[in-house]
Amino acid sequence: MAELVGNVLVGQSGGPTAVINASVAGIVAEALNHECIEEIYGALNGVLGLLQEDLIDLASESQQQIRALRHTPGAALGTCRYKLKKQQDFERVIEVFKAHNIRYFFYIGGNDSQDTADKISKLAQQQGYELRVIGVPKTIDNDLPSTDHCPGYASAIKYIATTVREVACDNEAMGQGDLVSIIEVMGRSAGWIAAGASLAKRRDHPHDPPHLIYLPEIPFDQPKCLEDVKRILKREKFCQIVVAEGLVDSDGNYVAAEAATDSFGHAQLGGAGDALAEIIGANIPGVKVRVAKPGLMQRCAAHAASKTDADEAFLAGQAAVKAAINGETDKMVTLVRGDTDHYTSETGLAPLSDVANSIKKLPREWINEDGVSMNFQFLRYAQPLIQGEVTIPHDTGVPLFARLDRVRVDKSLPGYEV
Amino acid sequence: MAELVGNVLVGQSGGPTAVINASVAGIVAEALNHECIEEIYGALNGVLGLLQEDLIDLASESQQQIRALRHTPGAALGTCRYKLKKQQDFERVIEVFKAHNIRYFFYIGGNDSQDTADKISKLAQQQGYELRVIGVPKTIDNDLPSTDHCPGYASAIKYIATTVREVACDNEAMGQGDLVSIIEVMGRSAGWIAAGASLAKRRDHPHDPPHLIYLPEIPFDQPKCLEDVKRILKREKFCQIVVAEGLVDSDGNYVAAEAATDSFGHAQLGGAGDALAEIIGANIPGVKVRVAKPGLMQRCAAHAASKTDADEAFLAGQAAVKAAINGETDKMVTLVRGDTDHYTSETGLAPLSDVANSIKKLPREWINEDGVSMNFQFLRYAQPLIQGEVTIPHDTGVPLFARLDRVRVDKSLPGYEV
Repeated sequence: MAELVGNVLVGQSGGPTAVINASVAGIVAEALNHECIEEIYGALNGVLGLLQEDLIDLASESQQQIRALRHTPGAALGTCRYKLKKQQDFERVIEVFKAHNIRYFFYIGGNDSQDTADKISKLAQQQGYELRVIGVPKTIDNDLPSTDHCPGYASAIKYIATTVREVACDNEAMGQGDLVSIIEVMGRSAGWIAAGASLAKRRDHPHDPPHLIYLPEIPFDQPKCLEDVKRILKREKFCQIVVAEGLVDSDGNYVAAEAATDSFGHAQLGGAGDALAEIIGANIPGVKVRVAKPGLMQRCAAHAASKTDADEAFLAGQAAVKAAINGETDKMVTLVRGDTDHYTSETGLAPLSDVANSIKKLPREWINEDGVSMNFQFLRYAQPLIQGEVTIPHDTGVPLFARLDRVRVDKSLPGYEV
Repeated sequence: MAELVGNVLVGQSGGPTAVINASVAGIVAEALNHECIEEIYGALNGVLGLLQEDLIDLASESQQQIRALRHTPGAALGTCRYKLKKQQDFERVIEVFKAHNIRYFFYIGGNDSQDTADKISKLAQQQGYELRVIGVPKTIDNDLPSTDHCPGYASAIKYIATTVREVACDNEAMGQGDLVSIIEVMGRSAGWIAAGASLAKRRDHPHDPPHLIYLPEIPFDQPKCLEDVKRILKREKFCQIVVAEGLVDSDGNYVAAEAATDSFGHAQLGGAGDALAEIIGANIPGVKVRVAKPGLMQRCAAHAASKTDADEAFLAGQAAVKAAINGETDKMVTLVRGDTDHYTSETGLAPLSDVANSIKKLPREWINEDGVSMNFQFLRYAQPLIQGEVTIPHDTGVPLFARLDRVRVDKSLPGYEV
């Protein structure tokens, strides 16, 4: 295989996570090892920066800052939910690649982003422009196919499980048989994050909080919910509930107040927790209901991130560069779990076309028959992923995060309207 | 002063904090040093357990568990919001004290709890029952008078400031001039917690998030808010807002959807964040608003607790015992700040009657003229309090907290209806 000499471009896309920047750090660290890579650029705000030729020079950042990316939440390059729509957008991308001799394109993101990477890759092939495109998985939703799990997911559920265990201490102290505590977590179409809350239970303590987990996979059954809550209030003196934002009733309607759609046509939800609080408050006399809604907090809680997750995100970035150097293109890095008892993982590759716009569902057989708790199969899957804590430097009492200098790469093309 | 030989009773009251159990640990650790103290009991659920003679033997708990209390959130003894109402309740308390030879009563709590301790102390005096009563301050609300600050407050604001800085990373990555992110924090009548969010700003970066802090002290001015948000969206591409639940308009009405009252007659609030989101969404075209509501999470986030706070909470417990042994009674332990440049603190004492049912307000002169940010005086006050991180042992990836054995003390009185 002929060596491909040229520049690297890395972009981040979609909702940030606690560890998406660790993948950038992995890409930069690995890219520096290869002489065929001349410059390492970042696209600001994903494909938006690509279209507008807003590129920064990542190699000029200090090593300190690149290392600090390994514990910095958000997306240090900026991100977007912009979807390349028209043929003109794709043509422009190739034009920018040519103008800056980009031969290696790494796109870190979820389903929509891998779809974008796939389309860019295919257009470059059509046009005979030699380009290697490798996607790096990222999403707290954990819904990408072909990979055992997605970087970002484990840190989100470690944070949620930590929070559930802490709030349980508070609830247990306050509960006099009348306290219902609800935590609404993200999860539009799949209950991966809500399921992760079950990791708060101690081993062999099935009655530990969270007592009820409401998943989008299981239609909400109001009479059963009210029965369950009453039973648990009697037994435990408090009832702790975790509910996914995408909870639906038996007609498939969201158990929530509002609904709108974002630019990808996904429903924007909020209010499953409040809706549940209303239902419980109205039907169980004398009950006090408290709702917490961590919202964006759960996807950027670097201070409670999983070390396993952060390390794998870094590794996935490195693997992307190694794969591209080895001539791979049009692939996404995957995480492959070893089949030993002790958890191990290594990286693999899957065709982008297999990943793009496909969804990995939470297996129905990992949910207990009661529909509101997870079984040992989920535990065996998820528990290894949240092991280890990330040490974060603090500055005057709050975590200190990376701030890139963002030295701009000179533009050489005319402007482009998006 | 004659040595008073007898037993200790400790109780916890009101809303838990991340460090209220550290005060229990301090009391137990110190009580063991004094031979005049024979037994160390805990009252389950504060005065409720006291009335119902639900006492546990704290000295029989393992040292391991008592040490683990120093990083365990919630209230390990259980807590309550029950207010001793009738004379009969107070008589019963003294009866329980006599039955178990309680000569030292330590009550850890906020305003209402210190009031309760004061009344118990006074009744014992009237009845000629020798009893030493020392209150230990506790409240994330930081509104107790006579003490520089309250154990529990610093951990709450360290968590909020950490969260604000993390969510800011996420917002900054996503913001395209159209993103407003709101975090609703606790604070019914005072903005102490919301003010603490300002610690997320880096030194000398006044434009850092949070961009707008809405405090109960400053009547909400909707036109100014909308102007501010638009200006910040233009300058920063996103606008991060922290709002206290107790925000009021110029007529003194809560900027919130719901209002009810708890058993102490305090308004139960919720919805200032959602109300603000509605106002902004309805008045700024094309804006996306995201609301997070940490709710109970903010008062039990032991995983992001301040070491200074946890240590002071322990110290306050120790000081309570030392004071009682020295013959003090009817006092609350206070924290006194040293007047050196480098932060130091020591404990003091204040009469319970000075503390009970009084409120320390957030000084108006610590709020900038703009009404939506804090000045250096607040910073100088609050920043030292959040220094240091508490190391928490983890078990299968989630924090491991103390669980008391709760060995019951035999009841010797007839039952009592509350």
